[in-house]
Amino acid sequence: MSASRTMNGSIRFERQGALAQVTLSHPGKFNAMSRAMWRELRRVFEAIQCDAALRCVLVRGEAGHFCAGGDIAEYPDFRFSEAGLRDFHENDVWGGLQAMLDCDVPIVAQIEGNCMGAGVEIACCCDIRIADAASKFGAPIARLGFPMAPREAALVLREAGALTAREMLLEAAVFTAAQMQARGFLNRVLPDGQCAGEAVATAARILALAPQAARLNKQTIRALNPPSGLDETAPVATNLIANILSRAYAYADSSEHREGIRAFIEKRPSNFSTS
Amino acid sequence: MSASRTMNGSIRFERQGALAQVTLSHPGKFNAMSRAMWRELRRVFEAIQCDAALRCVLVRGEAGHFCAGGDIAEYPDFRFSEAGLRDFHENDVWGGLQAMLDCDVPIVAQIEGNCMGAGVEIACCCDIRIADAASKFGAPIARLGFPMAPREAALVLREAGALTAREMLLEAAVFTAAQMQARGFLNRVLPDGQCAGEAVATAARILALAPQAARLNKQTIRALNPPSGLDETAPVATNLIANILSRAYAYADSSEHREGIRAFIEKRPSNFSTS
Amino acid sequence: MSASRTMNGSIRFERQGALAQVTLSHPGKFNAMSRAMWRELRRVFEAIQCDAALRCVLVRGEAGHFCAGGDIAEYPDFRFSEAGLRDFHENDVWGGLQAMLDCDVPIVAQIEGNCMGAGVEIACCCDIRIADAASKFGAPIARLGFPMAPREAALVLREAGALTAREMLLEAAVFTAAQMQARGFLNRVLPDGQCAGEAVATAARILALAPQAARLNKQTIRALNPPSGLDETAPVATNLIANILSRAYAYADSSEHREGIRAFIEKRPSNFSTS
Repeated sequence: MSASRTMNGSIRFERQGALAQVTLSHPGKFNAMSRAMWRELRRVFEAIQCDAALRCVLVRGEAGHFCAGGDIAEYPDFRFSEAGLRDFHENDVWGGLQAMLDCDVPIVAQIEGNCMGAGVEIACCCDIRIADAASKFGAPIARLGFPMAPREAALVLREAGALTAREMLLEAAVFTAAQMQARGFLNRVLPDGQCAGEAVATAARILALAPQAARLNKQTIRALNPPSGLDETAPVATNLIANILSRAYAYADSSEHREGIRAFIEKRPSNFSTS
Repeated sequence: MSASRTMNGSIRFERQGALAQVTLSHPGKFNAMSRAMWRELRRVFEAIQCDAALRCVLVRGEAGHFCAGGDIAEYPDFRFSEAGLRDFHENDVWGGLQAMLDCDVPIVAQIEGNCMGAGVEIACCCDIRIADAASKFGAPIARLGFPMAPREAALVLREAGALTAREMLLEAAVFTAAQMQARGFLNRVLPDGQCAGEAVATAARILALAPQAARLNKQTIRALNPPSGLDETAPVATNLIANILSRAYAYADSSEHREGIRAFIEKRPSNFSTS
Repeated sequence: MSASRTMNGSIRFERQGALAQVTLSHPGKFNAMSRAMWRELRRVFEAIQCDAALRCVLVRGEAGHFCAGGDIAEYPDFRFSEAGLRDFHENDVWGGLQAMLDCDVPIVAQIEGNCMGAGVEIACCCDIRIADAASKFGAPIARLGFPMAPREAALVLREAGALTAREMLLEAAVFTAAQMQARGFLNRVLPDGQCAGEAVATAARILALAPQAARLNKQTIRALNPPSGLDETAPVATNLIANILSRAYAYADSSEHREGIRAFIEKRPSNFSTS
């Protein structure tokens, strides 16, 4: 077992034979993802991808929650500068998510408690999603005054579907596990604390199957199913992506963005009526 | 409040602060869309798009129905000429739908009663769909002897899914609201006349959220999620689209098409057995 | 009625007016698809496509099962050579599936009993899927030590959705009809042996509708909705497909592949622990 901890949360990695266990950990913050955690998530999945003996990855959060979102306390440090905001989303966040998407080993998500924002995005990178009946899903960043970054939106659109993605983003809707199963996002929903057991049993089933076949299936599925419109190898998509990405972070210094973040930190409702 | 009415139905537009209310109105025809209404739909949404103060649009039909389809009484005037048919679908119908799709303001659909053909297509352009439990959905134009126009088919395929689109088009199936929710087309289904209240409450929730974030989210989602295969900015798709569109309306003068429309107008079952 | 039979199963074709009935038949093997059957499936659907008088095709399996998969007894003859494996998937299997996908006549699937592997792929090529409540669905080829071929994976991803395709391939999951309906793969599920009656009734509804409109709808839907990433007419996709396909069958001679097939034939559990 290797573990690295920082003041701002950590990604714990444990290896048990052919099984990798990845635990999101940010005590007191429902495992909200700090910048340090995003960077560590990337390193952990890059290491997993290089380990030919691994056959399954189990991703979960510590202490009864998957991940409550981003670590908003850090946001004032970088979000109000366009360059800082771009660096955060394109490098830190997408670096972590892309490393998960690039992983050839099957990934099982064990989702309990809060699965919001960054949590939904991390779950979107898992192949099989097992959830506790009491878990909650959403990306209510419209309350925080900002839109979802383009690559992240493409990922959530692909995995949660446009209907659910729009409801999360435009109405700030929060969904139950049963709703997310009906929307086609969750493979299984378990009541009464059985989620962890089912996730482990799922990993055990995967461990017994042909490992090379799994890696080939993941490579094929990844090639066939890139996040909508964001396959940069596609010349067709290039102008579209370039166009979206070039103006995606221009909102950084806007009053609406500042009001949303400030209100959250000051623990008051945001007021967008005059923005 | 501005209202414009013609003999052949109208699109009513009302503005209440940051909320635009758009009402499909064609008394006695369950709000079936006439050519004049399609053109007015375009003008209304182009005006909405130019109004930076708007934060939500609520679309509904008058008198307990959303929209029963096209105004079939007008069809003999233009449908049996290829040029006339093309002009209707590519300019009138798609002009209206494209203006809705191009709208950066979140659109909520309040769907009651009949939501058929053109009604389904208009609902496909809305971001959040709230329906009454007694509403009905379908596009049974195979009874009228004609296929769905390509751009409209791409839109319905994308929003309703291929399984449902094929069942609507190939079997002329009509679905309940509960079925359309299970198929992933409706966000919420409300019993006992609570649909209008929920639609208004949804609009109120959207009005309280960050308006710039909503517009940016819609721009990103639109760019990522064009109707399948019909992104004309894509060089790859051009030949395919050009090919489909070039022959899409050649059926205009066929006996099957004439029989389907004639039978409807004569209020008798269509007979395709000898066509 | 024409029928052709071989030692290794057959595809029975019967014509009743404008209805074509196609029956998968491999007695004693739950209609598992042999190479001869794949080639016959192609010939049958190419003949259907050339028959302008047909208005509906009904596809079913003989004796209470749809299709249990491939005929594994044949596999040692060709699967362990890369060229043989490629020929099987690209020519025999895809030849049959492509002929179904290219068919302009609406296809109804009547699914009872086992619908596994090849059975799921054949069902994916049908427009409307009616299933018995006791039918079972899956593609547990990870037990057999091999991945799904790219074109087939693209088809299953498109029709069953990525969530279900991954669960079938990575966890070897098997689904009930109710689950596959909830996942959006089945149009209707019927209890107590009512599946055949509903499939025939569905065909009758299609026969009464406009036949030219159905063909035009299928042409449009096919053009708009190619299996993800595998539209070879698209220059963008070419490198991706070429890349996947060039290395898709390199696993032919691997110990994992041999162990999976051998274990099945020897009727013992496969052991992938040392591969």
